[in-house]
Amino acid sequence: MRSFDLRERDVPEPRYGELLVKVRYLSVDPYMRGRMDDADSYAEPWEVGAAMEGAIVGEVVESRSDAYDAGDLVTGNGTWANYSLLDADSVSPVDPSIADLPAYLGVLGMPGRTAYFGLLEVGEPDPGETVVVSGAAGAVGSVVGQIAKMNGCRVVGFAGSDEKVEWLTDDLGFDAGINYKRVDDYRGALDEAAPDGVDVYFDNVGGPITDAVFTKLNVDARVAVCGQIAHYNDEEVPTGPRKLPQLIAPRAKVQGLLVSDFATRFGKASEQLGTWVASGDLAHRESVVDGLENAPDAFLGLFSGDNIGKQVVRVSGR
Amino acid sequence: MRSFDLRERDVPEPRYGELLVKVRYLSVDPYMRGRMDDADSYAEPWEVGAAMEGAIVGEVVESRSDAYDAGDLVTGNGTWANYSLLDADSVSPVDPSIADLPAYLGVLGMPGRTAYFGLLEVGEPDPGETVVVSGAAGAVGSVVGQIAKMNGCRVVGFAGSDEKVEWLTDDLGFDAGINYKRVDDYRGALDEAAPDGVDVYFDNVGGPITDAVFTKLNVDARVAVCGQIAHYNDEEVPTGPRKLPQLIAPRAKVQGLLVSDFATRFGKASEQLGTWVASGDLAHRESVVDGLENAPDAFLGLFSGDNIGKQVVRVSGR
Repeated sequence: MRSFDLRERDVPEPRYGELLVKVRYLSVDPYMRGRMDDADSYAEPWEVGAAMEGAIVGEVVESRSDAYDAGDLVTGNGTWANYSLLDADSVSPVDPSIADLPAYLGVLGMPGRTAYFGLLEVGEPDPGETVVVSGAAGAVGSVVGQIAKMNGCRVVGFAGSDEKVEWLTDDLGFDAGINYKRVDDYRGALDEAAPDGVDVYFDNVGGPITDAVFTKLNVDARVAVCGQIAHYNDEEVPTGPRKLPQLIAPRAKVQGLLVSDFATRFGKASEQLGTWVASGDLAHRESVVDGLENAPDAFLGLFSGDNIGKQVVRVSGR
Repeated sequence: MRSFDLRERDVPEPRYGELLVKVRYLSVDPYMRGRMDDADSYAEPWEVGAAMEGAIVGEVVESRSDAYDAGDLVTGNGTWANYSLLDADSVSPVDPSIADLPAYLGVLGMPGRTAYFGLLEVGEPDPGETVVVSGAAGAVGSVVGQIAKMNGCRVVGFAGSDEKVEWLTDDLGFDAGINYKRVDDYRGALDEAAPDGVDVYFDNVGGPITDAVFTKLNVDARVAVCGQIAHYNDEEVPTGPRKLPQLIAPRAKVQGLLVSDFATRFGKASEQLGTWVASGDLAHRESVVDGLENAPDAFLGLFSGDNIGKQVVRVSGR
């Protein structure tokens, strides 16, 4: 069965208020998997046969808005294509002096804002607390851990390779990293890495890592459920240890997280993230796959953990 | 194996600041099951051989405190015994003109306060919202549902007999009740009883009822995890459908609840609950087992749902 298909279409004409953008980079994100199911959720299911949509960075080649001129670099939601039409109202300017273009799909894009609001507003970390992050070397997790460090926390990350763990501890300042593909006893690893228990758990993954972390929750612990990538391809409802009985003694709070709930404050977050990136306080990394035709593989690679940091696809330019 | 034993001891002598109380009623509560395991939790494990402890109502027979005289009725934490020593600082007066003594172990005791704070502070129900309660005919659940009704909510309760369900809908004003021992399809039953989905779930039970409710959570739903009685006697860590993936789209919040966290405001809650009981706005019911020697059976009966409303044991008096 062929799930993805590359098709030729005419370059579209922008209408009033629209920009024709030459796509330079496009983003592949785990949440897109949910849109491939025919189920009600926060993002509408995609139509079979329609172009994939998602965040892009590109160059305006034709503008029918006063806000942007041809040649401007912008980011917004477009299609997986060489050229994409975007509403001028819905895009943001890109400043390549702060960071290279791919960063605008990661640390300076939706993943960075997800980390920012999810950690600070749902996780609410206090100095001296222990923050555990799953998917820690991903686009969201890597930012979560660094902001937690800025807030004076002990930070422990789960990631899927020694190279990723080294990046966390050597470059991002994590206090400890656990390679979940090499360690069998996650609880034992946490005893060592989080000896005072877990105050905040930022979960991108689910599965056995999450099962282990839930046995270590401290009183008043907060769990931000950002993603559950281990389960996105499950055909049946996944089962596992029941977690509600584990919440009573610690009075722990577990909350689902969608970054769109914080949309009114995206501007402030982007400004703060941009300042940290420009100053070097917030490190970031992007994994780049070349060629629009390879976007499906880049997307699928998210589920086997191919990416370190943010996974993007270069469509044109350097 | 014999788990409970009745032993004769000398009536103890109160020391300065203590009251010798003739126990009239004692409380059996599901949380006591946790204290029978040798595991760290919010309540210390009981020592084998020591007297069972819990809430009692009784009459002061000897006072070494200026705050109470012989003949006063009080409630506090004592032992499962004919006579119990209590610190005068830790007891509350009982006013039999507001309600009969057993009510001070239920609606006017810890269960009532648990319902009050759990619903209002964790569940945070708004008028027009749908509140679902499991264990709805129990000491906590029956109060939760009535306070939710006072707050203008649609209220649906799960209970384990037709008699219980009738009590909920005919006497307590619940909008719908589901006898989970007669219905197989809990989701289908919820489609009918909670057609607009679930905004607040007050969970006393866990298990398949909870599994069904989690599939119906609305955006911004709140779940107060008060008890998980279905799992207290599990020998192994119980498994079930994973719930974290279900929290993301609705951004639902799930929080463990211990009433002791609200201790500084117990006075205000008790006053409010007393006012509602005195005015008849808050109905209550107690199931009474006679005789100290039958306290173990009364306790075990909680796990088969023998009680309607609050289960108490009459130790002496009427």
